[in-house]
Formats: sequence, structure tokens, C-alpha cells
Amino acid sequence: MSRCPYFEKKHLLFKNKPSIEESQDASQAGGEGSKGRIIYGDYLQLDKITTAQVLQSELQGNKIHDEHLFIVTHQAYELWFKQILFEIDSVREIFISGHVRDERNMLKVNTRIHRIVMIFRLLVDQFAVLETMTALDFFDFRKYLMSASGFESLQFRLLENKIGVQDNLRVPYNRRHYKDYIKGDETETLLDAEQEPTLLKLVEEWLERTPGLEVDGFNFWERLEINIFDGLNVEEKKIEKMPESEEKEKLMAELVKQREHFTSLFDEKRHDHLVSKGERRLSYKALQGALMIYFYREEPRFQVPFQLLTSLMDMDNLMTKWRYNHVCIVHRMIGSKAGTGGSSGYHYLRSTVSDRYKVFVDLFNLATFLVPRHWVPKLNPNVHTFLYMAECCDSSYCSSEDSD
Amino acid sequence: MSRCPYFEKKHLLFKNKPSIEESQDASQAGGEGSKGRIIYGDYLQLDKITTAQVLQSELQGNKIHDEHLFIVTHQAYELWFKQILFEIDSVREIFISGHVRDERNMLKVNTRIHRIVMIFRLLVDQFAVLETMTALDFFDFRKYLMSASGFESLQFRLLENKIGVQDNLRVPYNRRHYKDYIKGDETETLLDAEQEPTLLKLVEEWLERTPGLEVDGFNFWERLEINIFDGLNVEEKKIEKMPESEEKEKLMAELVKQREHFTSLFDEKRHDHLVSKGERRLSYKALQGALMIYFYREEPRFQVPFQLLTSLMDMDNLMTKWRYNHVCIVHRMIGSKAGTGGSSGYHYLRSTVSDRYKVFVDLFNLATFLVPRHWVPKLNPNVHTFLYMAECCDSSYCSSEDSD
Amino acid sequence: MSRCPYFEKKHLLFKNKPSIEESQDASQAGGEGSKGRIIYGDYLQLDKITTAQVLQSELQGNKIHDEHLFIVTHQAYELWFKQILFEIDSVREIFISGHVRDERNMLKVNTRIHRIVMIFRLLVDQFAVLETMTALDFFDFRKYLMSASGFESLQFRLLENKIGVQDNLRVPYNRRHYKDYIKGDETETLLDAEQEPTLLKLVEEWLERTPGLEVDGFNFWERLEINIFDGLNVEEKKIEKMPESEEKEKLMAELVKQREHFTSLFDEKRHDHLVSKGERRLSYKALQGALMIYFYREEPRFQVPFQLLTSLMDMDNLMTKWRYNHVCIVHRMIGSKAGTGGSSGYHYLRSTVSDRYKVFVDLFNLATFLVPRHWVPKLNPNVHTFLYMAECCDSSYCSSEDSD
Amino acid sequence: MSRCPYFEKKHLLFKNKPSIEESQDASQAGGEGSKGRIIYGDYLQLDKITTAQVLQSELQGNKIHDEHLFIVTHQAYELWFKQILFEIDSVREIFISGHVRDERNMLKVNTRIHRIVMIFRLLVDQFAVLETMTALDFFDFRKYLMSASGFESLQFRLLENKIGVQDNLRVPYNRRHYKDYIKGDETETLLDAEQEPTLLKLVEEWLERTPGLEVDGFNFWERLEINIFDGLNVEEKKIEKMPESEEKEKLMAELVKQREHFTSLFDEKRHDHLVSKGERRLSYKALQGALMIYFYREEPRFQVPFQLLTSLMDMDNLMTKWRYNHVCIVHRMIGSKAGTGGSSGYHYLRSTVSDRYKVFVDLFNLATFLVPRHWVPKLNPNVHTFLYMAECCDSSYCSSEDSD
Repeated sequence: MSRCPYFEKKHLLFKNKPSIEESQDASQAGGEGSKGRIIYGDYLQLDKITTAQVLQSELQGNKIHDEHLFIVTHQAYELWFKQILFEIDSVREIFISGHVRDERNMLKVNTRIHRIVMIFRLLVDQFAVLETMTALDFFDFRKYLMSASGFESLQFRLLENKIGVQDNLRVPYNRRHYKDYIKGDETETLLDAEQEPTLLKLVEEWLERTPGLEVDGFNFWERLEINIFDGLNVEEKKIEKMPESEEKEKLMAELVKQREHFTSLFDEKRHDHLVSKGERRLSYKALQGALMIYFYREEPRFQVPFQLLTSLMDMDNLMTKWRYNHVCIVHRMIGSKAGTGGSSGYHYLRSTVSDRYKVFVDLFNLATFLVPRHWVPKLNPNVHTFLYMAECCDSSYCSSEDSD
Repeated sequence: MSRCPYFEKKHLLFKNKPSIEESQDASQAGGEGSKGRIIYGDYLQLDKITTAQVLQSELQGNKIHDEHLFIVTHQAYELWFKQILFEIDSVREIFISGHVRDERNMLKVNTRIHRIVMIFRLLVDQFAVLETMTALDFFDFRKYLMSASGFESLQFRLLENKIGVQDNLRVPYNRRHYKDYIKGDETETLLDAEQEPTLLKLVEEWLERTPGLEVDGFNFWERLEINIFDGLNVEEKKIEKMPESEEKEKLMAELVKQREHFTSLFDEKRHDHLVSKGERRLSYKALQGALMIYFYREEPRFQVPFQLLTSLMDMDNLMTKWRYNHVCIVHRMIGSKAGTGGSSGYHYLRSTVSDRYKVFVDLFNLATFLVPRHWVPKLNPNVHTFLYMAECCDSSYCSSEDSD
Repeated sequence: MSRCPYFEKKHLLFKNKPSIEESQDASQAGGEGSKGRIIYGDYLQLDKITTAQVLQSELQGNKIHDEHLFIVTHQAYELWFKQILFEIDSVREIFISGHVRDERNMLKVNTRIHRIVMIFRLLVDQFAVLETMTALDFFDFRKYLMSASGFESLQFRLLENKIGVQDNLRVPYNRRHYKDYIKGDETETLLDAEQEPTLLKLVEEWLERTPGLEVDGFNFWERLEINIFDGLNVEEKKIEKMPESEEKEKLMAELVKQREHFTSLFDEKRHDHLVSKGERRLSYKALQGALMIYFYREEPRFQVPFQLLTSLMDMDNLMTKWRYNHVCIVHRMIGSKAGTGGSSGYHYLRSTVSDRYKVFVDLFNLATFLVPRHWVPKLNPNVHTFLYMAECCDSSYCSSEDSD
Repeated sequence: MSRCPYFEKKHLLFKNKPSIEESQDASQAGGEGSKGRIIYGDYLQLDKITTAQVLQSELQGNKIHDEHLFIVTHQAYELWFKQILFEIDSVREIFISGHVRDERNMLKVNTRIHRIVMIFRLLVDQFAVLETMTALDFFDFRKYLMSASGFESLQFRLLENKIGVQDNLRVPYNRRHYKDYIKGDETETLLDAEQEPTLLKLVEEWLERTPGLEVDGFNFWERLEINIFDGLNVEEKKIEKMPESEEKEKLMAELVKQREHFTSLFDEKRHDHLVSKGERRLSYKALQGALMIYFYREEPRFQVPFQLLTSLMDMDNLMTKWRYNHVCIVHRMIGSKAGTGGSSGYHYLRSTVSDRYKVFVDLFNLATFLVPRHWVPKLNPNVHTFLYMAECCDSSYCSSEDSD
């Protein structure tokens, strides 16, 4: 008989295999009660989860109440980091395997990045719980932790690396590399992860394939360049017709700056220079793809890609807000004094709240290259129809296999 | 050398015992790196926390991506339930041991209940993460869970019991008691917990001791009764002087109701009757204490007690909001159809979003007994001074031992 | 010179008309500073917004501090209701005008419903601010408000009506219709609104047009019916082969229930009966469309429609959570005592936290009709391609005019 | 008859004056319906609030949908700024008038600062609503706003000034002072506000009066100094006894630093130097008071003061988080390009997310001066009792007048 509020017991009805064998399979997996059913606490391995709170202060004979909160909060962070890594890896897999070319998989990609956004939103809010601990409560047990530190979180480093925080843009801590703070056997995991393509890289490749960029096709980029400079010329003519005045001079000066600014957009060498300095991250072609999606976001094929770009910015923003909230609580807990090692934790963390750690910073900065709608190249009927058609994995009928 | 952003390495300086022995103690506790320091991942037992996600769907050969989120979300809930139980137990201990009589401990009580409030606020928000899973995603793996259900969460039941959800007010699920859904060895834990005084009971006893209630002292209750009925009589006189009109009749009718209402407040038998029906939970004396704290909340001795009563209502409110959010997600995941067992999980859960599950419901309902400030008995100088003085454990100088 | 952090001064460059005329237009609209620029405070009409806080308690000679919070909180609610109405109206207009047939407009529809979701999320959180006021603070000034009540909010009623709360499903308050509580000149606005198609009605019509439902085309509904009953028959055969046992009997009993349940899905008369009772809201055809979108949600044409259905449920859920939070604060402020009019505000509000007020309740309840993926009719190549192509307003090249 | 969920109609019963006169008073105040009762919409002046949304884009013939959201969001911010100013002013008034000396008023002070905290929490979350607007949506109408900018918000500047952001610590924007961006008639309001004591100043004076600081009394400061250096000497002895090793050298080096650090705490001249540089804000005496409250926070008289200090840090933290969220949305809306005026809005705003704008920064930095509990001077019985007694306005029975 079914007794669960969550899920009606349809198991036997809807199973693909006969139920009897399944029960056996399941029993081998452990975690089953009498009659072969799984028990809630076993399913969630609560024996591990709820027994993992060992207070160092208690071990050392001076139990401090608030250490329990400290432990649970960090464990909750790590639990959610696990989930984020799981989502990131699955999205990366969809890109790496090429399944992303079947546009049906875009729903999945989008949903999972959005889920990461929702998790980070929660993680930012979670600081409010830790903030119920005061600096004085923390002081009572921090001596027992010695130098164990969130700085050593493997999962957080993996997360940064997999999304695409660049090694050369990281701020060193006390002149040492972050990897020096990761313990031996974990370093390997970290090095392995660095060999895999980052989410940034995968999104870049996907953007480079944006339909409509082809030189022998719609050739968005050339058309856009023409339209922008035509537009600026029209503006210039208008201003020239104005009677001489301070206002006119200002407008003309501004027009000159605009022209320079847009000239830079179409200068591939300058782009590559900015990339080499870490001020831009995406390739020149990917940037074009992103801008194309921005401008034609309402076209059916671009709606979900546009949402994806928006979600990637949400994710970046929330990671940086998470960092900033972290800075705030550290300020509260230990003040801003420099540590004995030379630099203070507070000041180090502050320096990571920076655009250097914003992986998709280019998507933000494209806002400086927006133009009026009537400057955007008109789609001709062919392209327009094309943008109404999604691409399938092999342009023919495809099986509906799950890419998981 | 210290390298942690969180805590400067003051360990040796601030330790009570020589550091060498301590290192030895700590090493026995495990979790130490070279040089005796504790490693972050060991400290948090991340080997347990981040390996506890085993997907039933994967075990049965059909890995469903979203089951991972389902597991992590429930584990996060259980992690926080653990923390809430830890706080509830510590607060109950302060009451049980009598340490609460030393008013210095009120800060602790208050802070910890407030922390529970902040955790529940997070837990309510946490549903937004699980809501990124759709009914269709859930359908894909719910068959593998069979009837494992949140209904079986031991910690949640402990939480309810320790706060003071009354057994006789619980809604039975499919005509069976909730304990039937808890597995064997856990039932004992549950039964043990039922023997301990609930937070409700402990707060009740504390409220009964509210200074100022004593019949041979300020005698708040008698004075309040006099003032209220004097006040009502003055109102009656005013109304009587009005010219006859529909308005006058209404006012008089309302006055009669008010008098009845307040008469009920001072009727101990009626109170006991309501308690027996479960409509009130606190003793008659405790109710008086709560109302006294309400009316004199600005007196120094009552400020923190008043905050505590407010936090208890916050906690109750948030638990009930948590229940309601749970109802909403269940509606989304499985619809409202009745299960095979007779009643649907959805309808069962809805029925628990009820004042029957609001433990401190009396504190809310006291709002119907508020009176104008000038009806509140004036404190005479003696009592007034008294309310400026807090009570210590033994009215003399007391040691500043921690009650943990 | 530009001095604003928000927007660089590109105005002249990017204007469509000559700037001089525009300045004149703008000056007629008021709100301009010297040199023709708009001043922040004028733009936002802050002279209205920040002077609209008049405390009744102060007017009557007894200023109560917390009345200010009470006013501002309610004003903030009304401000956001205005925004929600603006979004709802714009979405309804896209549907009414038929612009929704151009699938490019789905981005807009989706974004705006999602925005309403985000606003409601904020409005639910906003109760935490009002909860800083205690019942005692409220008591001090509620007498000055007399019976002015949130119950009289025109915008909230408009909101309910425009989304599609059905008149016959509303809970009467003190046996009177909610319209009796709206003041004279506002009743007309309300009646006018009732003549307009609700969001529910518009979404219903849109769902009825879901491609693939046509009897002479893919004929989703007939194929689904066949597959489901074939599937159930296969299950039955499996169970019949089991040796006699209690388990076998249970499974067979459950199968019978399942068959009944699904039989009801394909019974149009029963559907219409449920609609007449208010237990279902969507037409039979619309329900089919919704289920089709559910099952084929990954097809490019259905990704955004699926998101829309999800957002509509989010909106419904949040409105109901808003109602429940409202109930909680009312309980806190005035207790649960019945009012003089017969029923208590608290109990009335509780009764509106009901599926009767969940406009898109059918979308939730479809969860009871989900089936295993292999029961879902396979798309044949033609349909599959079709679902990769979006529909434009007139199947040809269309102008990119904004539908606003 | 009463029909409101919020407030039962007790008005006549509980009024201080005869109801007839009151009705007349009220009618003069406007906003009344027939029968003299106040109508919800009139009470809230919704005719102002809900008609204040005039889109510049619409005035200029090109209505852009998202401008409505932009306006409403900013109006909601200003509405809440109004409330925050109202609370800040009321708290400042309690301090200025000396009512704070009656410790009964601490509940009010504390509650109101806590309310500001809750409002700021909401305001931080509110950015999530504005983030539903993309850079492209914003681009479509930002030209119509010309340079109107949040930078010109009078209320936000007042807020900063009244809390205590120091003029000399402000970051100039484009080399100009923020006041240059406030329009004429508002500058006066701003100048007037600068003449009034800031919250920082008032809290400082209150901290200077912390009981127990007196040189001829408990003399907390001297005792603390003795204890700290005694404690450090004990540590030194312990270290000296260790066998020579690298570890020993490190510990000794650290001890030297600790001694220097604490020496600085007791160096009034150095303190004054830091104040002159803006690195500290509180007077030397106030700092002592704050530290005393920290160390003896559990003493009944210090519980509420300790909560107040915590709330002040919460407020500061949330203001800075608000600033950072603002930076993030500006990055998203306009990118990081420098404006024509020389510096970019983005970079300017980033520079205000700084400890220079953290008014109560000293309360955070005191975390670097915490010491082990056994170093804190023991209270002798006299002081201990004293800390159990609150102070009344005039040490005798005082009237319960409200200080509003």
C-alpha cells in the first residue's frame, strides 16, 4: 500500500522489467526495508549525513556551542557545491559530446544552468544563518580549528576551474598559488579537471557556430559594421546642420568617441590584444555570435540561446555576490587586520570580488556595443525562415535518446 | 604560519593547556594533516557528506539526472534539521537545568531561537531550488523510490515533538499514526523524546514564574480585570448618552460582545475547557505571564522575554509556512489525486497546515485580548524598580560558567 | 556631459527624431531641469510618492510610530500590483491581438510572466518587513483605521479577475460578495475588467491550437489513448503471470484503479462535468494541448511553451503563498477571534488559500496523468520536423514591429 | 459592522475621546467614505501612488514596455528609503532628547534599527526583479532618460548623511562632489541634515557613557590592559620553556606581534591618529564602551545594547551589499566602459563598495582585539549587581510617556 505523500506507488505498473528481479537488484544496493522497499533514511544515507558533526572544541575538552553551526553551514555549502558540480559536468558533457547540436538538448542545458542560478541564490541567502554567530562566539572555538580554512575547499576550486576562472587571473594568497593549499591526493583531481574543457571554452565554441555568421551566408558581422558606420554618418550630418554652440561641440566630440568605440569592435587585432591581457575571454568569432543572439533574440531559434546567455550572466553575478557576502562575514568574524603571514584573509578575499573572476565578463561588456534597433541588419526572408527552424543532431529524424 | 582567511593562528597563544599535549589529543581525533594541523575536508568529514548521493535510478540501470537534486535537497533539509535539533536541545537544557533563572542566559536562549528562525527562513526559500525540477522529471525516477518518503523523516518528527506538537492533535495519515511510518530502531528514539519536556512545556513553566503575577505582590491579573471592566463601564456610559440611533444599537451590541469576550479571559474553568479541546495549550497562569510581558514589554527585565515570545511565534509561523510550501511542491509533483491507500499525500499534507500544528498558538491568539494603554495597570514605584532588576541564579554573585 | 552611472548620454546620437523637437515634447511633459534634461525626482514623481504617508493616528492627535510602516508597506504592495497589472495586460494584449501566433512574441510573453513570478517572490518576502510590527504596535493605531481594509484593494481584485479567479468559486465574506467592499466609482472598473478575456481564457485558446492535436494530422490524443491502454494491458499480463499472493492481488487492484483513472482522462463528458463543478478550468482540447507540450517539451517549438506553462504554475503557487503569508500575519496581528460581523478576517482569508483560487490548477493536476516515456507516441519524421519549425504571424516574412 | 480582516472595529469602544468629535476630526482630514469611515484607497493615497508612472518613452512617441518596471522599481526604492529615514530620524530623536537614558527606550531603538535591517534585506532582494530587464530592453529607453540618474536621489544621500557617511571619505564622481548632482531646492535639505548629529555620533556618545568605564569605578579599561599583558607574559613563559625549534621561533615571533597589536589598543594617540585618517570613526572612550559591551554581553543590562551593536553592523553590511548589487546590475545594463565624462558609472559605484562607506567599521574591527574569556576582568559583586539593574530616566519612578 502506498503511504507516501511524495510519490504514489506506481512502481510495478510502470516498470520496464518484471518487478521481482528489480526487487532483487535493489536489495543488493542496500537501503531496503522489509518487503523490499527502500527506507527514507537509508536512501539519503542519513547515517553519514547526520553523524558528521564532530566539534574540535569538544574533542579538546571545551565544547563551544556555535562550532556546530559552523560545521553544518560549511557542510551545507559543500553539499550544494556537489550539486552544482553535478550540473556543470552534465552540461559540459552535453557540449563535449556534441549533443548540443541537437537543439532539443538546449532545454536541458538551459534548465540546468538556471538551477545552478537558483542554488547560488540560496547560498547567498545562507550567509544570513551563519551571521547569527557573532565574532565573540567564533573567537571561542577558532583556536581549535588551527588553520583549517574554506580556502582549502576542493569542490569550490573545481567549480571555479570547470566554469573557467583563469589561472593567470587568480589573485595569489600570501604570494602562493591556491593549489598549495589543497592537500596531496586532491591536487591530482584538480589537475585532471584543468585538462578538461571549461564551460567558458565550450560556450565559446558553441557561440562560434551561431547560424548567420557565415561570410558566404547572411554575414551578420559585415552588415552590422556597415549599418553602424552609416548610422554614425547620418548622426554626424544632423549635428553639422546645428547652429554653432557649446552643445553642438559636445555632441560632435561624443560622436568622435562613439566612432572610435565602434571601430574597436571591428578590430580583430585589438580584440586579440585584449584577450591576451585577460580583459576579454571569448574569441572574436564567439563575440560576434553572442551579439547576433542579442540582436535577434526574439527569433524562435535564438530565444533559448538568449536565455542561456542571460543565465550565464546570472550565475557569474551570483558567484561574485557570494564572494562579496563571504568578504562581509569574514570582516565581521576576524576584522581586517593583516595576518601573521603578511596579508589578511579579509583583504585577500576582497581582491577576488573582481571582474578577473567573472568568467563571462564579455557578455556583460557587450552592453557597450548595443545599437538602435533600426541599425540592426534586417533579416532577409531566407535567413528569417532559417531562424525559425531548429537544427537536429543529423538534420533528419533522430531518436529521442536521453543524452545523460 | 597562518594562511587562513577565516581565523588567524592564535592557537598556541590562547590555549589553556600546553600545545604539545593538545596536538596529541587532536591527532587521536583524526582529521589532521602533517604538522598536526586539521585539514578542512577532514574537519567537515566531506568524505561522508559528498559521497552520500547514490541514485536508485542509476542502481537500477536507468540513471535519471534529477534524482541527484532530489537527494541533495533532502540531505540539506536533514542537515539543517540536525542543527535545529541541536539548538532546541540546548535551549531545552537551559530551561530544564534551571539556568534560565539566571537572566544572563536569556541572551543565549533568545539568540538560539532566533537562529532557528533564520534557518527556517532558509528552508522555506530552499523549495525554490527543488522547484527547478518539473513533475515530468520527477516522474522519471519516482518509481525507483517506491514508497520511501519524507513522511518517514525521523528528525522532522523529533523536531515536532520536541517543540511540542501534541500527539492527540496530529492528523492521522490513512488512518494510521505517524509512528507507524518510522522504522523500528528509530521508534525508540522517538518514544524517548516524548518523555522529555517539550519546549512548549518549558516555556509555560517559565511564563508561570513571570515576576509580578504573585497574588501577594503586584497581582497583575486582578488589577487587569478591574481595569478592563471599569473601562468597559465607562464606554457603556458614553454610549448610553448617545441619542437613539442604529449606530448606538450597534455599539451597544458590540460592547456586550466585548464584555463577554473579556469575561472569558478571566474564567479559569473555560480556559481549562479550551485546553482540554486543544484550542489553548498554555496553562492559565502562563497565559497571564505572557500577557504581562506583552503589556510591560518595555520594562528592562521584559525586553528580552518579549523578544523571545516574538521569536517563538516567528518559528511557529515559519514552520507552518514550510509545511505550506511543501504542500505546494507536492501538488506540483504528483497532483491532487487520492493515492491507492485511500487518501492523497497532497490532502494529508494540506491538513497539517493548521493551527493544530501551531505550538505557540496561544501567543498569537492573545492579540484578541489587547487593551488600550491606559487600561493597563500602572506599575507602582516598587514594582517598577523591580522590573529594572534582573534575577541572578542565586541572587548573589554568580560564577560566569557557561551553561552548555 | 554625462554623469550618470546608469546610462551614458547617447541620447542625441541615437534618437530617431531631431533632438530639438524632442526637448520641447519633453518639456510639455514637465519634469525637466535646466538645459532640458530630466531630473531624477521629477521623473519618478517623488513629490507624490514620498508625500503620500499621512498617519490617521497623527491626524487624530495621537501619532503612533508604526502606522508609518503600515502605510508604506501597503503602498509598496500597491505599487507592485500596478506593475503586475501592467505586465498581465501587456501579455493579454499579445494574445488578444493574435500577435502570439508569431512565435517570436513568445519570448516576450514568457519573460513577462516570469517577471510577475519574480515580483510575487519579492512580495512574499515583503511580509518579513511588516512582521517587525507586533500585535501591540498595531493595536495602538488600528482603531484609527476603522474598517479600512486590504480587502478593499481594487488592484488586487483586478489582478485576480484578469488572471482568471472565477466569480462562482470565490468565498463570500460575511455572506457578501467581494464587490460590495469596493467603492462606487471603482466598481465600474472592476465590471469592465470582467468583460475582458482572462489570462486563463487566452491561454486556453492558445493551448487548443497546439500543433499536433489535429485529428487529420498527428492526432496526438488518439495515439496517446491507444498507447496507454496497450501499456496497461501489458502490465496486466505481467501481473497475471505472477504466482497467487497478497502482493499480486494488490497490484491487480491498483491496475484496475489506474485503468479507471486513465479512462476518465479520455472521457470528455466527465471532463465537462468537472468543469461545471469548478474542479477543472481548461477546455478538453486545451488540456490535450497542455499534455502534448508536457510530453514533447524538448522539441524546439515546445521549449518556450513548456517554460510558459511552468511559469504560470509558479505564478499561481506564489499567489497562493502570498495569501498564506497574509493569513499568518493577520493571525499575528488580530488573533483568530471571529469579528462582530460574524466571521473572522482570519478565517475568511484562510479559506481563500484554496485550490479554488488556483487559476491554473489543471496544469498541476495533469501530474496525475503522466506516463512512462515509452508510452508516449513516437513522432514520425514529418511531425518531428514540423516541431522544429516555429510559426510566424503570416507564414511569410514579417516585419519586426513591436507588438506593444 | 466590521468587515475587515485586518482590524476588528473596536474604534468606538477603545477611543479616548467621544466618537462623534473624532469622526469630525477625521472628516476634515479627508479620505472618508460615507458613514465617516476611511476608505482603503484614500487612506493610502493610491491616487498618487498608482498614477505616478509616466513613461518618457511614451511621451516621446515610442513607448518602451520595460520603462514601466524601471520606474516602479525606483519608486519602490524611494518608498522604502522614506521608511528608513523615518526610522533613523525617530531613533536619532530618542538619542538627542536623552530618552535613551531611560533604558526602557532601548527596546524601541533596537526594534527600529532591526526594522531597517529587514528593509535593506528586502531592498537587496529587490534587484532580482529589476534583473528581469536585459541590457537590450534598457537600451531601448535609456536615451529618453537623458542623464536622470539614481545618483541624484536626495533620500539616499540623506540616508547616508544621517547614518554618518563622512564627507571627506566620499569618492568624488568625475572629480565633482555628490552635492553638485542634487537639484537646487534639495541642496538646502541636505545642508540642514548635515548640521544634525549623525547616528554614528549619537551612538558614540551613548557608548562613552557605558557603565563600568569610570576610572573611579570598575575601571574596565585599566583592568583589561593589565589582564591582557599578564596573559601574554604567561604565554611567553610557556614558549620559552619549549626546546629550541623552528616552531618555537615562529610562536615567539607571533607573540611579539600580538604584543604590538594590543599595545596599539591602549595607545590613545595612535587611536586619534587613525581617526584623523578615517581608519577609525569612534572616539577612544566609545571604543572602550563597545568592547566592554562585547565582553559582558550576557549581563542583563548589556544584552539589548549588544543586540543593538550587532544590528548596526547588520545595517552597515546590508548597505554595502546593496551597493554591490547595484554595481552588478549597472555592469549588466551598461557594461564597464568609461563614460564621456571621464570615469564610468560602473567604476565609480565599485569604488563606493568600500570600508570608507562602512559607518560602523570600528565595530567590525574590534574583532581583532578579542581575548580569551579568562583574560576578561572578573566583575566584582558590586558591579555585577549593577549590571543587573537598568537605569531609568531619573533613577526614580518615571512616567510611561512615549518618546515619539
